Amino acid sequence: MQLDGSNLHAMAVGCSILGAGGGGDTAIGLLASLQAVEAFGPVPVVDLDELPDDALVMPCGGIGAPMIWIEKIDRGDEIARIIPIVERLRGKPVAALMSAEIGGSNGMSPVVWAAGAGLPVVDADGMGRAFPEVPQVTMEVAGISASPAVMTDERGNVVIFEGIDGHWMERMERSMAVEFGGQAYSSEYQMTVVEARRATARGTVSLAIRIGEAVLGAEHDPVGALAETLSARTLISGKVVDVERRITGGFVRGSATIEGLGIDAGRVVRLEIQNENLVAIDAGEVLAMVPDIITVVDTETAQAIHTERLRYGQRVTIVAFPCDPIWRTEAGLALAGPRAFGYDLDYVEVERLNAG
Amino acid sequence: MQLDGSNLHAMAVGCSILGAGGGGDTAIGLLASLQAVEAFGPVPVVDLDELPDDALVMPCGGIGAPMIWIEKIDRGDEIARIIPIVERLRGKPVAALMSAEIGGSNGMSPVVWAAGAGLPVVDADGMGRAFPEVPQVTMEVAGISASPAVMTDERGNVVIFEGIDGHWMERMERSMAVEFGGQAYSSEYQMTVVEARRATARGTVSLAIRIGEAVLGAEHDPVGALAETLSARTLISGKVVDVERRITGGFVRGSATIEGLGIDAGRVVRLEIQNENLVAIDAGEVLAMVPDIITVVDTETAQAIHTERLRYGQRVTIVAFPCDPIWRTEAGLALAGPRAFGYDLDYVEVERLNAG
Repeated sequence: MQLDGSNLHAMAVGCSILGAGGGGDTAIGLLASLQAVEAFGPVPVVDLDELPDDALVMPCGGIGAPMIWIEKIDRGDEIARIIPIVERLRGKPVAALMSAEIGGSNGMSPVVWAAGAGLPVVDADGMGRAFPEVPQVTMEVAGISASPAVMTDERGNVVIFEGIDGHWMERMERSMAVEFGGQAYSSEYQMTVVEARRATARGTVSLAIRIGEAVLGAEHDPVGALAETLSARTLISGKVVDVERRITGGFVRGSATIEGLGIDAGRVVRLEIQNENLVAIDAGEVLAMVPDIITVVDTETAQAIHTERLRYGQRVTIVAFPCDPIWRTEAGLALAGPRAFGYDLDYVEVERLNAG
Repeated sequence: MQLDGSNLHAMAVGCSILGAGGGGDTAIGLLASLQAVEAFGPVPVVDLDELPDDALVMPCGGIGAPMIWIEKIDRGDEIARIIPIVERLRGKPVAALMSAEIGGSNGMSPVVWAAGAGLPVVDADGMGRAFPEVPQVTMEVAGISASPAVMTDERGNVVIFEGIDGHWMERMERSMAVEFGGQAYSSEYQMTVVEARRATARGTVSLAIRIGEAVLGAEHDPVGALAETLSARTLISGKVVDVERRITGGFVRGSATIEGLGIDAGRVVRLEIQNENLVAIDAGEVLAMVPDIITVVDTETAQAIHTERLRYGQRVTIVAFPCDPIWRTEAGLALAGPRAFGYDLDYVEVERLNAG
């Protein structure tokens, strides 16, 4: 498979839906990736089974507030600057790039960078969705080291972090990203292919394309096509009647209330938001919770509406679907389960909560 | 010359006086260096002319708020962790350590680290005094690159900065120091000996010892002995009648007012403070200004009173003496002259201002 003008639109739609409301808009990432494949040619997507065991996989992405990226866009050469530094630190060439986070804008960025560097991207990522913090990746769950990490900005500043664990990396890189103007680019958790096979969410690039093609290709019922592709549950279809949003500690926190219409008339679902949609509650009953993926989509088009774009009056449908199995392990839930976000809830899988 | 129990007390007294009120207390640095030379043996002090031209000189010091260091002291092995990383980045062994800042606590720290590493310290530093910001060093004036810089803390976290100029380094490292708990350790502006010969304030370690020996050895008039050793002007002798201090933007700003006693009765001198004593004014007439060194000393003992220890009622004498000549160049004044600190004053040398 390769990424080119024929499937990047679909991929962008899929990345947005996998973002669980977070990860930022894919509009700029789509434009940048279309320009990159036009300039440098298509980007091969390789499965981890096709690469040699000891080849080096380099996760990468933007760090900072996605909303800033809408105005403070990258030059395009940031990760090109990081690649030789990672190669020097690791003592071997980078064989392929990988999105640290398939959900939202970070799902598209590696395509731009891989096109410029003449590298493939692997059909995998470090989340299978979007999460707000550096260590909330499948590699951390699998025991891969976050260090050395390399960070840069559009000016050419380079910062290297060594001997720093994932949680300190979050503090250090977040603070640097603020100094860099709210947005920077980085690589952490580089690993060999043999490590990546057990430490990543696999197949997520092709999944994003499949989601997007289902949604864009549906003649009558895009939401139905989306639900079928993802085995997703439709939690409610209705109207946004309340959005509360505040920015604390660098994160967007708040809630959104959706009042049912049609067959859902009379029901009300509240979404708890911390950058991503984390918990969906119907009259005190939890319908879905993190790390499962809860996404608000437009009822007409099935395109994702990111948390920062939720507005009163929108006609929306909430879909929820299972996260990558690695998040359902004890270590995965400790890092990104409901309690990791401050909710006093025992995790129950979305398919069990909605088995009726 | 070597540093050992016979001259470290004097050196600490001298470093405090060279601090121009800043750079922090030398009490902990003195205790740590005494312990280090007891454990590892004396530390040789070498002149730059004694070292091979292409040998590597590694400036080092603490970064952060000196007052925090009074409680959050270092483990002692921080710079030992930095040395091999600098050697790897520079591709050659470190031949000697150098204090980035002879004034205050950073004047003593390299002694501790050199003892542990079995390295000499050079008889020079990067300021000849204390200044608040990373790029306010003679190496910056001389065009030496601030990068690569290496920073660490007592936990073993390591951050490397590449391709970053002195002013960005200040922002980056300051922000990291805050994340590290307000105090960290770093090396910037590494250089060869041939570069160091023109890019440093030379002879400042032996000067610090000479100052301390004069003050501690004076039988009757320590302030007189100090003034003679430094060719210093005595601006006023009197009593602290007002101290105003506020912490803004991570720096201590304020002023202190000294009312003359004895032959100075009737005179009042105001000191403008930004971490260091920057300007001394007598009834609208400037008596001394940065980058020349203005230090408040105890009138009885001639020991320096750092800005954070100034108190109402103290009997003090203000002395002022010439800075290293590199600061009097156009580039030096641009970086650390009165206008660099926001004073709308043309620089005039302290010896010219007090020629009468």
